[in-house]
Amino acid sequence: MSESLRARIEEVCRSVTPVNEEWLAKARERQMTLTKPPGSMGEMEEIGNRMAAINQSVSSGPIRKRIYVVAADHGVTAEGVSAYPTEVTRQMVFNFLNGGAAINVLARHGQIEVQIVDAGVACDFPPRTDLIDKKIVQGTANLTRGPALTREQAVSAIAAGIDLARTAKRDQVGLLGIGEMGIGNTTAASAITSVLTGLHPAEVTGRGTGVDDDVLRHKIAVIERALERNRPDRNDPFEILACVGGAEIGVMMGAVIGAAAERLPVVADGFISTAAAALATTACARVRDYLFIAHLSREPGHRALVEYIEIGPLLDLRLRLGEGTGAALAMHIIEASAKLLAEMATFDEAGVSARKKSL
Amino acid sequence: MSESLRARIEEVCRSVTPVNEEWLAKARERQMTLTKPPGSMGEMEEIGNRMAAINQSVSSGPIRKRIYVVAADHGVTAEGVSAYPTEVTRQMVFNFLNGGAAINVLARHGQIEVQIVDAGVACDFPPRTDLIDKKIVQGTANLTRGPALTREQAVSAIAAGIDLARTAKRDQVGLLGIGEMGIGNTTAASAITSVLTGLHPAEVTGRGTGVDDDVLRHKIAVIERALERNRPDRNDPFEILACVGGAEIGVMMGAVIGAAAERLPVVADGFISTAAAALATTACARVRDYLFIAHLSREPGHRALVEYIEIGPLLDLRLRLGEGTGAALAMHIIEASAKLLAEMATFDEAGVSARKKSL
Repeated sequence: MSESLRARIEEVCRSVTPVNEEWLAKARERQMTLTKPPGSMGEMEEIGNRMAAINQSVSSGPIRKRIYVVAADHGVTAEGVSAYPTEVTRQMVFNFLNGGAAINVLARHGQIEVQIVDAGVACDFPPRTDLIDKKIVQGTANLTRGPALTREQAVSAIAAGIDLARTAKRDQVGLLGIGEMGIGNTTAASAITSVLTGLHPAEVTGRGTGVDDDVLRHKIAVIERALERNRPDRNDPFEILACVGGAEIGVMMGAVIGAAAERLPVVADGFISTAAAALATTACARVRDYLFIAHLSREPGHRALVEYIEIGPLLDLRLRLGEGTGAALAMHIIEASAKLLAEMATFDEAGVSARKKSL
Repeated sequence: MSESLRARIEEVCRSVTPVNEEWLAKARERQMTLTKPPGSMGEMEEIGNRMAAINQSVSSGPIRKRIYVVAADHGVTAEGVSAYPTEVTRQMVFNFLNGGAAINVLARHGQIEVQIVDAGVACDFPPRTDLIDKKIVQGTANLTRGPALTREQAVSAIAAGIDLARTAKRDQVGLLGIGEMGIGNTTAASAITSVLTGLHPAEVTGRGTGVDDDVLRHKIAVIERALERNRPDRNDPFEILACVGGAEIGVMMGAVIGAAAERLPVVADGFISTAAAALATTACARVRDYLFIAHLSREPGHRALVEYIEIGPLLDLRLRLGEGTGAALAMHIIEASAKLLAEMATFDEAGVSARKKSL
C-alpha cells in the first residue's frame, strides 16, 4: 500500500510541467508597453509575468483565493520543546473555526477563503462540515525515539495534500496558500532544514512560539538526538518527512506538489510551510515554477530554507506566527501583480510619450 | 503674504500633538491577550499599536483610505536629466483620470480612493471635477540657475497640502497616502536628500525613470551645480523646498504636516514622497508619530532618507515608479494590522491555554 501510494505520488511529480515560456515572453513584452518605465514595478513585474505563464493568459478580474490551514500534533512535545502545551493545537482549531485567530482576520481583510484541515491533531473532533478531515494520525510519534511517521502515514499525508490541491482547482481557486498550526512543529521544521541544507541544528533552530535560552539549547539537543536516531537520507524527501516531519508538513508538501500538477500557483507562508515546500521541491524541482514564498520568518532556519529552494520571500515584517498569516498578505501583492499586467493602459492606449530615443 | 503664510504653517506644526501614550500602553497590553505568542506578528503589532494610539481606540471595521497623487513639472528637465520628455507629466495626469495607470489598478485592488492633484503641471487643464486644482506654478524654475520656487510659491504649496489633509479628515478618511508624478522630480528629491543628510549628490542620485550612465553622471553634476548656486540652509526646510524642491513636493510636505495636525495616519510612498516627508519632519519632528514609509525604493537616496527620518519602510519589492503605488500596497498591511488588534479573539474568549508558567 505504502509503495503503491508512493509510486502514485511520483507519477504526480512527473506530471508537473514547466511554465509556458511563450507566455512568459509575451508577458515580458507586454510589460514594456505599459505606462511605466520598464522594470519600475520591480518584483511585481516578475510575479505578474509568472502568473501569466502559469495561467497562459493575462486575463483580468478577481482571483479566487484560498488558504488551507493544516493542523497536527507532534510527539516531540513530550521532550518539553515548546512554550505552549500540546492541547493548544486543538484549541486553536476551534479558534480558527470560530473566526477569532489572526489568519481569520487577515483572510477576511484580503477576501480569502480559509479552510481548516485536521491532518493529525491528537484528539477526536466531532464531525463538522467546516473541518476537513484528513487525519493521518493522532499526533506523530516522538522523533527522538524513531520516525515521527510510518512510511505509510507519510505518503498518506502527501496524498491528502495532493487531493486538497485538486479540490481547490476544481473549485476554481486561482491562488492557493498553505499555513499550519501544530505545537512542536518548529522542532520538526528545524530538523528538516538541517537535513536538507546540511547545516547544524544550532544554526537553524529558533525560539518557536518563544522559548527561553535554556529550552532553546535543549531543543537543539533534541533535534541532534532525532537526527542521530533516524539518519534520514537527505536526497529522499519521503524519508525525511517520515523520520523528522509531521502530518501537517506532509499534507502541505502534497498540496505544493498537487498545486503545481494542476498549474495552480501556491504560496508557502513561513518557516514550517516553507520546510514542506522545500521537501516538495526536493521531490520535484519543477514545482518551483508555481511556488511563491510569502515572507521571511524570524525563525533562523527560514533564511537557510529560502536559499535552499532559491525563491526570495516577498515580505519581511518579522512575523513568526504561521497559520498562513504571511501568505494572506502576500496573496494581496501577487493578485495585484497579475492585475497590473492585465489592467494597466499601454503607452499607445493612453497617448503617453515613450522614452526619448537617445537614452 | 509669504511671511504670514509661513507663520500660519508653523502654527499648524506647533499644533501637532504626540500620540497618546495611554492608548499605546493599552494597545500593547491587549496584544498580550490575543491568541498568538507575544510579538509573533512582528511589525504588524507595532503598527496596530500606533494606529490605536493615533485613533485613541481599537475599534474595528473598514478604514476609509485615500491617496493624493500630486503632479508637477520641473524646470530642471531643460538640463536633460530624464529619460522621458516633460509632457509625460501632463499625459500621465490624463492616464490617472482615465484609470489606466499603475496606481489606479492598485487602488481599485486595495479599495482605496485616488484623487489627482495638479500642483504645478506646465499646462492649463480644462476645469474638471475629478482634478483637484492646487496649481502653484506652471512648472518650477530651473534649479541650476536659482531657486526652483519663490518663497511664496513654496509656502503656498505647503498650505495647499495642509488643506488637502484637512479635507481628507473632514471626509472621514482614516488612512491617507501620498504619491506623485513629475518628470524630473528625482533630481529635486536627490538634491533635497543631499542637503538634509549632508551626503554628496553622487551617493544619493539614481537613474530615476531609467537614464544611462552618461546621463546619470550629468544628473549628479546638475545637482552639484544646483546646490552650489542655491546653498540652502539644511536646518530650514522651507528654504530647501524653495531652492531645490518642487510644487508636488511642497504639497506632499504640507499633507504630511496637515495629516499629523489632524491626527490622521499618513503613508509616504517612495523616494520623492519620502523627501517631502523628510522636509515635514524637519519642520516638525512630531509628525513622525503619524508617518509610515511604504517601501524601500530602488533609488539609492531613499535608504539615506529613511535613515534620516528613522522610520523603517514596510515593503521592499524593488519598486521605483512613484504615483503612490507602494503606499497602496502598504495601506493594506496597515489596515490589516489595525484589524488584528481589534478583531482577534483573546485567550480567554477562545478558551486557549496560555504559555506554560515555567517558560
